[in-house]
Amino acid sequence: MAGGARVIEGQPTARDMLREVHKAVRDLNTDHRLTVTLALVVVGDDANTLRLIENKKARAEEAGLRTQLYTLPADTTDAEVITVIDGLNHDDAVHGILVQHYLPRYRDARRLIEAIAPSKDVDGFHTSNAGLLANDAPAFVPCEALAGIHLLKTVVESRPVGWHAVVVGDTHRTGRPAARLLLNERCTVTVANEDTRDLAEVCRQADILVAATNRAGMIRTRHVKPGAAVIDLGRSRVTVNDELRIVGDVRFDEVREVAGWITPVPGGVGPVAIAMLMRNVVTACRRQNRLDEKARHG
Amino acid sequence: MAGGARVIEGQPTARDMLREVHKAVRDLNTDHRLTVTLALVVVGDDANTLRLIENKKARAEEAGLRTQLYTLPADTTDAEVITVIDGLNHDDAVHGILVQHYLPRYRDARRLIEAIAPSKDVDGFHTSNAGLLANDAPAFVPCEALAGIHLLKTVVESRPVGWHAVVVGDTHRTGRPAARLLLNERCTVTVANEDTRDLAEVCRQADILVAATNRAGMIRTRHVKPGAAVIDLGRSRVTVNDELRIVGDVRFDEVREVAGWITPVPGGVGPVAIAMLMRNVVTACRRQNRLDEKARHG
Repeated sequence: MAGGARVIEGQPTARDMLREVHKAVRDLNTDHRLTVTLALVVVGDDANTLRLIENKKARAEEAGLRTQLYTLPADTTDAEVITVIDGLNHDDAVHGILVQHYLPRYRDARRLIEAIAPSKDVDGFHTSNAGLLANDAPAFVPCEALAGIHLLKTVVESRPVGWHAVVVGDTHRTGRPAARLLLNERCTVTVANEDTRDLAEVCRQADILVAATNRAGMIRTRHVKPGAAVIDLGRSRVTVNDELRIVGDVRFDEVREVAGWITPVPGGVGPVAIAMLMRNVVTACRRQNRLDEKARHG
Repeated sequence: MAGGARVIEGQPTARDMLREVHKAVRDLNTDHRLTVTLALVVVGDDANTLRLIENKKARAEEAGLRTQLYTLPADTTDAEVITVIDGLNHDDAVHGILVQHYLPRYRDARRLIEAIAPSKDVDGFHTSNAGLLANDAPAFVPCEALAGIHLLKTVVESRPVGWHAVVVGDTHRTGRPAARLLLNERCTVTVANEDTRDLAEVCRQADILVAATNRAGMIRTRHVKPGAAVIDLGRSRVTVNDELRIVGDVRFDEVREVAGWITPVPGGVGPVAIAMLMRNVVTACRRQNRLDEKARHG
């Protein structure tokens, strides 16, 4: 029997969370005649992007949400896309909005994201939500970061106050929001990036190591302090023996030998992130209708 | 002659910056018939607060800015304060707005700050500006943090890419924005707080140590790696031999023996922060009138 680490499986947590979402959706319908609704906007006809959005749509429906899918051709102008988004912003029957695209003309999707009403930005990418999180105020938080820290908190006693967390990777969508969540948990937080010197030495200080680089298998045994909690937010497609596989940033088989806890990829953060997204839609619906909410973040 | 550290004096930098502000104000007036204007709103009659705002007003006028001072009595309702702010938001002749208060009913000033139009929020406290900075987009940045990192960059060659910065203190007004600025400079950034274990050990890793706790003299020799740049954002009033003195977080006399560079208090970050605030008003005026701007951050 190999490995000292306890593996933090995402499926049980995701299942519980989706069950709660399902119940909340039913209750909102019964008690308030609300039909929790997620609108998905996709621009362009990239096959991967379409598959991704179809998958999110299917998962939302499994969770009991109503969905609306808008597929816009690749030659739709930005102004036209924003008109669609704006219509959804003003539609009280729509509670959450996702925008997905894969077009060279968007180096990043900033302009489209900023067009989404912050109160419907269930991805948590809007500047206002980044600012709210930065100020430790109730915000929608990007789901991978939220899922990673949530999984962490299922295994550490109460809150990880005073723990040293090292986040490897400083992207706006995963590393930075994860660091903000950990700061709000009152951890000591280090953010490392591609320019970090002695990365292994920095990482070995971590009681909590969060990998958010999307560089397959870059975190090795030498990066991990014995007993640390290792949370893998990475996701890359690699071909192993002619077979396409999804792998994380962490070399699971070797790192599990030293870590105290470790999330696998797939089956760790991924399923919880999807469940978090659905929970964000429920939270959005509650907030828009000024109903009680339990969750502080998303 | 004591001390190995080079002292980073703020006055020369502040003077240069204020000279540039003065010139920019004149040019905006000559070329575009704009009178750069800062509105100062103060709620309540606390003597310290009034002195602080009078001081800012005087400094703004020295820099050539026009000022408008609104002193509202302590019993002004929030709605009335917000009405004043909103009037200023919609007044094209006003480019920057500061709100100062000292009332027990504001545990924090969030509600008033969020009422300021982000484009006129020259203090950089609004959620939108926090989010823009978090996403490395052009933002107004709180002046102490901006001044500290600016002074740092006057002494390090080009940009401090890959340097390890440790920020002690995680407040929304100084520590956190300083950390965001350093992340955007591509430093490895650690944020420590009151719960940090082995603070001295964490601090001794710093190539750049930013003190932002407002706890007088808490940073001692044992916190400082030889040769490090020590930036003191702290400011406390203490009584020494019956004399009121302003001191920073860093014990200057002992830390200068080990540090490579050090900012004094007073005379370090403080004067530059005031100059930065005036520069932010000029930037606000330029942006509101869609004129060229040089500075990325405020």
